[in-house]
Amino acid sequence: MRVLVLHGPNLNLLGEREPEIYGMQTLAEIDATIRTAATELSVDVRSEQHGSEGAIIEALHAARGNCDGAILNPGAYAHYSYAIADAIAAIGIPVIEVHLSNIAAREAFRRTSVTAAACRGTISGLGARGYVLALRALTELLSK
Amino acid sequence: MRVLVLHGPNLNLLGEREPEIYGMQTLAEIDATIRTAATELSVDVRSEQHGSEGAIIEALHAARGNCDGAILNPGAYAHYSYAIADAIAAIGIPVIEVHLSNIAAREAFRRTSVTAAACRGTISGLGARGYVLALRALTELLSK
Amino acid sequence: MRVLVLHGPNLNLLGEREPEIYGMQTLAEIDATIRTAATELSVDVRSEQHGSEGAIIEALHAARGNCDGAILNPGAYAHYSYAIADAIAAIGIPVIEVHLSNIAAREAFRRTSVTAAACRGTISGLGARGYVLALRALTELLSK
Amino acid sequence: MRVLVLHGPNLNLLGEREPEIYGMQTLAEIDATIRTAATELSVDVRSEQHGSEGAIIEALHAARGNCDGAILNPGAYAHYSYAIADAIAAIGIPVIEVHLSNIAAREAFRRTSVTAAACRGTISGLGARGYVLALRALTELLSK
Amino acid sequence: MRVLVLHGPNLNLLGEREPEIYGMQTLAEIDATIRTAATELSVDVRSEQHGSEGAIIEALHAARGNCDGAILNPGAYAHYSYAIADAIAAIGIPVIEVHLSNIAAREAFRRTSVTAAACRGTISGLGARGYVLALRALTELLSK
Amino acid sequence: MRVLVLHGPNLNLLGEREPEIYGMQTLAEIDATIRTAATELSVDVRSEQHGSEGAIIEALHAARGNCDGAILNPGAYAHYSYAIADAIAAIGIPVIEVHLSNIAAREAFRRTSVTAAACRGTISGLGARGYVLALRALTELLSK
Amino acid sequence: MRVLVLHGPNLNLLGEREPEIYGMQTLAEIDATIRTAATELSVDVRSEQHGSEGAIIEALHAARGNCDGAILNPGAYAHYSYAIADAIAAIGIPVIEVHLSNIAAREAFRRTSVTAAACRGTISGLGARGYVLALRALTELLSK
Amino acid sequence: MRVLVLHGPNLNLLGEREPEIYGMQTLAEIDATIRTAATELSVDVRSEQHGSEGAIIEALHAARGNCDGAILNPGAYAHYSYAIADAIAAIGIPVIEVHLSNIAAREAFRRTSVTAAACRGTISGLGARGYVLALRALTELLSK
Amino acid sequence: MRVLVLHGPNLNLLGEREPEIYGMQTLAEIDATIRTAATELSVDVRSEQHGSEGAIIEALHAARGNCDGAILNPGAYAHYSYAIADAIAAIGIPVIEVHLSNIAAREAFRRTSVTAAACRGTISGLGARGYVLALRALTELLSK
Amino acid sequence: MRVLVLHGPNLNLLGEREPEIYGMQTLAEIDATIRTAATELSVDVRSEQHGSEGAIIEALHAARGNCDGAILNPGAYAHYSYAIADAIAAIGIPVIEVHLSNIAAREAFRRTSVTAAACRGTISGLGARGYVLALRALTELLSK
Amino acid sequence: MRVLVLHGPNLNLLGEREPEIYGMQTLAEIDATIRTAATELSVDVRSEQHGSEGAIIEALHAARGNCDGAILNPGAYAHYSYAIADAIAAIGIPVIEVHLSNIAAREAFRRTSVTAAACRGTISGLGARGYVLALRALTELLSK
Amino acid sequence: MRVLVLHGPNLNLLGEREPEIYGMQTLAEIDATIRTAATELSVDVRSEQHGSEGAIIEALHAARGNCDGAILNPGAYAHYSYAIADAIAAIGIPVIEVHLSNIAAREAFRRTSVTAAACRGTISGLGARGYVLALRALTELLSK
Repeated sequence: MRVLVLHGPNLNLLGEREPEIYGMQTLAEIDATIRTAATELSVDVRSEQHGSEGAIIEALHAARGNCDGAILNPGAYAHYSYAIADAIAAIGIPVIEVHLSNIAAREAFRRTSVTAAACRGTISGLGARGYVLALRALTELLSK
Repeated sequence: MRVLVLHGPNLNLLGEREPEIYGMQTLAEIDATIRTAATELSVDVRSEQHGSEGAIIEALHAARGNCDGAILNPGAYAHYSYAIADAIAAIGIPVIEVHLSNIAAREAFRRTSVTAAACRGTISGLGARGYVLALRALTELLSK
Repeated sequence: MRVLVLHGPNLNLLGEREPEIYGMQTLAEIDATIRTAATELSVDVRSEQHGSEGAIIEALHAARGNCDGAILNPGAYAHYSYAIADAIAAIGIPVIEVHLSNIAAREAFRRTSVTAAACRGTISGLGARGYVLALRALTELLSK
Repeated sequence: MRVLVLHGPNLNLLGEREPEIYGMQTLAEIDATIRTAATELSVDVRSEQHGSEGAIIEALHAARGNCDGAILNPGAYAHYSYAIADAIAAIGIPVIEVHLSNIAAREAFRRTSVTAAACRGTISGLGARGYVLALRALTELLSK
Repeated sequence: MRVLVLHGPNLNLLGEREPEIYGMQTLAEIDATIRTAATELSVDVRSEQHGSEGAIIEALHAARGNCDGAILNPGAYAHYSYAIADAIAAIGIPVIEVHLSNIAAREAFRRTSVTAAACRGTISGLGARGYVLALRALTELLSK
Repeated sequence: MRVLVLHGPNLNLLGEREPEIYGMQTLAEIDATIRTAATELSVDVRSEQHGSEGAIIEALHAARGNCDGAILNPGAYAHYSYAIADAIAAIGIPVIEVHLSNIAAREAFRRTSVTAAACRGTISGLGARGYVLALRALTELLSK
Repeated sequence: MRVLVLHGPNLNLLGEREPEIYGMQTLAEIDATIRTAATELSVDVRSEQHGSEGAIIEALHAARGNCDGAILNPGAYAHYSYAIADAIAAIGIPVIEVHLSNIAAREAFRRTSVTAAACRGTISGLGARGYVLALRALTELLSK
Repeated sequence: MRVLVLHGPNLNLLGEREPEIYGMQTLAEIDATIRTAATELSVDVRSEQHGSEGAIIEALHAARGNCDGAILNPGAYAHYSYAIADAIAAIGIPVIEVHLSNIAAREAFRRTSVTAAACRGTISGLGARGYVLALRALTELLSK
Repeated sequence: MRVLVLHGPNLNLLGEREPEIYGMQTLAEIDATIRTAATELSVDVRSEQHGSEGAIIEALHAARGNCDGAILNPGAYAHYSYAIADAIAAIGIPVIEVHLSNIAAREAFRRTSVTAAACRGTISGLGARGYVLALRALTELLSK
Repeated sequence: MRVLVLHGPNLNLLGEREPEIYGMQTLAEIDATIRTAATELSVDVRSEQHGSEGAIIEALHAARGNCDGAILNPGAYAHYSYAIADAIAAIGIPVIEVHLSNIAAREAFRRTSVTAAACRGTISGLGARGYVLALRALTELLSK
Repeated sequence: MRVLVLHGPNLNLLGEREPEIYGMQTLAEIDATIRTAATELSVDVRSEQHGSEGAIIEALHAARGNCDGAILNPGAYAHYSYAIADAIAAIGIPVIEVHLSNIAAREAFRRTSVTAAACRGTISGLGARGYVLALRALTELLSK
Repeated sequence: MRVLVLHGPNLNLLGEREPEIYGMQTLAEIDATIRTAATELSVDVRSEQHGSEGAIIEALHAARGNCDGAILNPGAYAHYSYAIADAIAAIGIPVIEVHLSNIAAREAFRRTSVTAAACRGTISGLGARGYVLALRALTELLSK
């Protein structure tokens, strides 16, 4: 089972950027945590980070043939990128959306996600462990 | 560690009610799954189901002294019950919101949750396993 | 054929409450009128009145196994109770919504009904006879 | 007692037009059903169908001197024709609005009726029998 | 100088229809008043009343070659008929909009006029004398 | 018969300010035209111009005992001054609102007037002659 | 003179719940303060607290025959419970709404109260003394 | 293959009406161009122009038995005529909507078309050649 | 203890202006009532009335050094004067907003107060006694 | 004559992605169809596909010196990319927008196109033939 | 070159009022800084502060003949004073709007400025130096 | 002191693109002007232009370690790129937003900037000199 983990814009600054919102872990540390969990779950996981909407769309397309599922943290694109939402709908594999912070408790524009509408589900507000939970859910979904 | 699992209105009809949206498991089966996971995680879990907004508020209040955290599926109350949101904010223990279906992909009124704003985080669209993931997240949050 | 007639909040005050809007009949008188019509139509009718959203949901659930259809006057819950709407959708039996006053001609918030969306149809503005007409319609619907 | 039954735009296509929404009966069949009920209720009923907003307004005006009440299915005009609403208010006789489909469960624009605000009441979602119920209600209203 | 006076839907019922809003004068009486004023101003005036949006558009078109200006009481069409607004813009002669009642003080939907945007100006709330004032204004505008 | 003519903010710049919108006449010239018409109509007219909302309110209050009616061009205050609207409602004498330009054809914020709701009627888009027409209407209204 | 004091959802947690918003007094302490003031004013006061919308409606109904007036802190129900608003309108005795915090200065959804529209007046932002002021106002209102 | 070309309100004034928006060709010239193209494509084409919403609805109904497809320029009705939209949906033959001007670049109310939702597709902003392109598209659609 | 009582626009007409909304007392009588209560509470009270937004702002500024608190009835400015709201926030002394009528039960624009957001609290709908209650509340607030 | 055909995000997946919405042709097949038509029309056509908003902007800029016109299917960017709209306005050559599906009949967010406002016109809902029609229109526009 | 610097409501309290938002400098200190910069730029500068909308309008009018340009900090009036916006448009000299705080990062109502629409440009969020930058810009604009 | 100047989409076309809105200077000329000012202010300035949202985000990230501040003209991204806003908030160095045209006076969508909310301040409408003013402001801010 192969899973793509796709981190969106500004997530490369994790650990340094507004730690009171996003936590103190760096993206490398989060990816290491995900890999540990993946190994435990016998999942082949690959992580990418892209700041560009187009690059996220391409990465999703590339996952079509190569991955069984994907975990996507679209960052702020969640709130307006209908192009990413279309890409998720187009590729046909299950995608789970993850947000580190609880987007329901932040600015009004963050309270709805247009990309989540094309995903299987969403996990938000649970920090880096959201990725691990998503991986677990995806594994179960795919092994059914 | 004690955790309250609180199921909101209409969830007692699970398995019978619109299975294409909510799945085929009954609430009793879901609760059994949660209990199994709880045992594995050494968590003391108690499940309740209430159709009444007031009863949900009371159950949350009662959890204050007795539980370390709660998992809440507010059902449709998620979309308008500011009174439940206030109760979550008032009790001071971490609450994770769970929805069986992917509320971001349904009717417009279901795309925002006013109760989620008072919770730690939300898991939606992952079916009954959303509860187990929430339990796992809560356990980790509380054992830190 | 068994039909549940469910009166929502404040309808117990009928005849005393704002008679210029709701008419001079008491709820007991309306229920008597409904029973007379039911006898005529050979329908077994039972009336309940609840002020609580949760109680209305429970009464609808209880109707699932026991009734062939229901007539619901949700009162003001019509305009915001997505939980009652979900209950109507969940129970699978036909429900007809009745309003005594013409809600299209009153305050803006009364002009849309979120519960009606889950019903078979709506009768409003025709006073107590709206219940009798609904009973007649339900009888025909169910005997087809 | 004389009652005008006024069918609005596109209702002449009934039975052929989207039967999954509007049912399989033709307008002629519906009018026959109405006439049968009218005879039973000793009401003198006349049916007209008009696709034009202006013709509906004229028909309502003509009903002023000649009819004791009217039943109006304004079709899509229900949702924007303030001119028809003004005509209903102007003629002073009671008008009941009928919709074959449950407009509360369809597209957002169909969920409010501006013409209903000028009527006595509304019956929607009960198919062709809505007209018969409206006739019955009107008969009772007028004989009081 | 020739001027068309165009009365929209329901104005044929003036004097009988809601006199507390629209006054006690009949349309014939208003037209007589307008004719008297027209004679005084040496204007050749012609009055028409139409309930149909299409007929109003045609009357406006017909005025193009034959009239120097027009006075239009669009009735409720003022609030939604972009087709009439386009007709006014298309014919190139000055049109003044008149409303008998003060539309700024009535229901919310009456507070903006989409047809007025294509007119030279608007006179509202001054009853039948609004037509005479409009005639006077048009005479002055056209004789410049 | 005494009538107050009240010009609001920026009208003192008439003739110099954006003549393509407001015309080439100065306020003094407009006032002279009004006085000529007033003499003709045997009305005692007094003109004031105020840029301040408070001063307009005070002038309206002062008109209560001293004038039989008022003509008000509230300028931009028309679109947000509920305080002026309250003053008009409070003084009990008839007020007619006048706008030089056709406010229905300008920016969105100019398309509704909150002060007009408290007036008897409105005349807009007819330039300086709007004041004379208003005076005429007021004279007729008051002599009835 | 008998007055009902009705505390809505979550108010039972006062003193413990978010004291920076709601103050440090417990509900028991507030009720004691109210009773002291009631004694001084020779008013017979009874306090109840309910988390359920239905229970609040029932308590209001019960007050009809038994109390001369009521003081209601609807908590978050203020912002969406049209059912409670209808109950207030139905019972015919004067009700004054009280909020401990200044709801005009909090989240957008708290800035309008739908229940206040059915009350005599509102006191907000003045803490527990708001109840005492309301009691005083009610006493004066009722003794006129 | 028979195709109806239906021109809506004000299009009879083409060539004379606001040529900077709608071009210099008259409707007769446009119809001639359409006929030439129709001959080339071996299509039997018939053109009608109606200012009345009702007449457009009737023309669409008439096309049901007689035409294989239709081209509709609804003019301003595009933006509010749900009755025409219903007619298009009811007749079951493919309809292509054409606008001479680029409605996406004009006033806000012209940016959405409610009738287009019931059509197969839309061509706008390409002037009279939009009709010819629509005819070509319809021919291809129908010959498949 | 010194308290400023600030009456906004149109309140000078109290007793004469729409008594069915604002009561029969004149402003002088209300001020006398306030002074009586002030004497009883040993508060030094000064009343001012201003129709001008600027004058209200200046009066608030002047209160900074000279008063311990203020009571403000902003009249209609409550609904749009962000400048007064800024003044209240700027002066640092507690201000309580008072409305004679129950603004929650009137026109939509009166249902939110932008100035109240900068105040300590609001009392509305309790007539002239609202000032006395505010004075009492202010006295208690300031003596703590 | 040189024309750029620019396909936006996710169009590279055509034929595989949601064929019930977008049809069964691949992008290569569509481009071949366009090339055939271009040869017939003696137009030099070049096709590009980009998922990135920035790349689309750059391709439009590059077309400035090199192409006489462009055909753009902006995909989901149509609904929010003001940056692409600005690029279209900036390059000065005519651009026609094409959508395969009928965007007026899909989700609400797809019903307006912000990029279309900067184009000459739009063709939507006619599948791959929309490109050929646009090419034809562009050829005619440019050869005038 | 003469420039008017116009400070709006509450700016006289600078240095004392909410220094965390508006800074610690008094208005006198800011004016001194502006004068120093003006001397350096050989500009004749005059500063005024007004809390009243009417006074700001008058000061702008007075600047027409006497100043070559103006710098305006409209304070909260920026967000609703269409009367000040009209005054800016009317006087014909260039005006630059300045805000001390970054209004884009504050409450929703502060995010748009209606007065800025009539100005040449806006400088916000740069504290007192915003005035000096505006002076510099105005000098350059005027010396071209 | 090092400052990054970041030009967003379409700014590379300056001087050629809509000069009536954006002026006649090319981007190279603007950059030369900025460099001259930078030399004068002893600031080390570097200019970049990117059409891609992702590239702008990356450039902002790169500025974190290397620059003391940044000047950003986000072009149309200002109005919807929450991802760029997040990048500005994430990098912690002061950023000033610059717009050549006065965005408050253009289309509605340009009147709010979501990126400005994360900046220190904004300068708009002052043409190319806006960059120089921003540089000056940044220099002062950073040398404090």
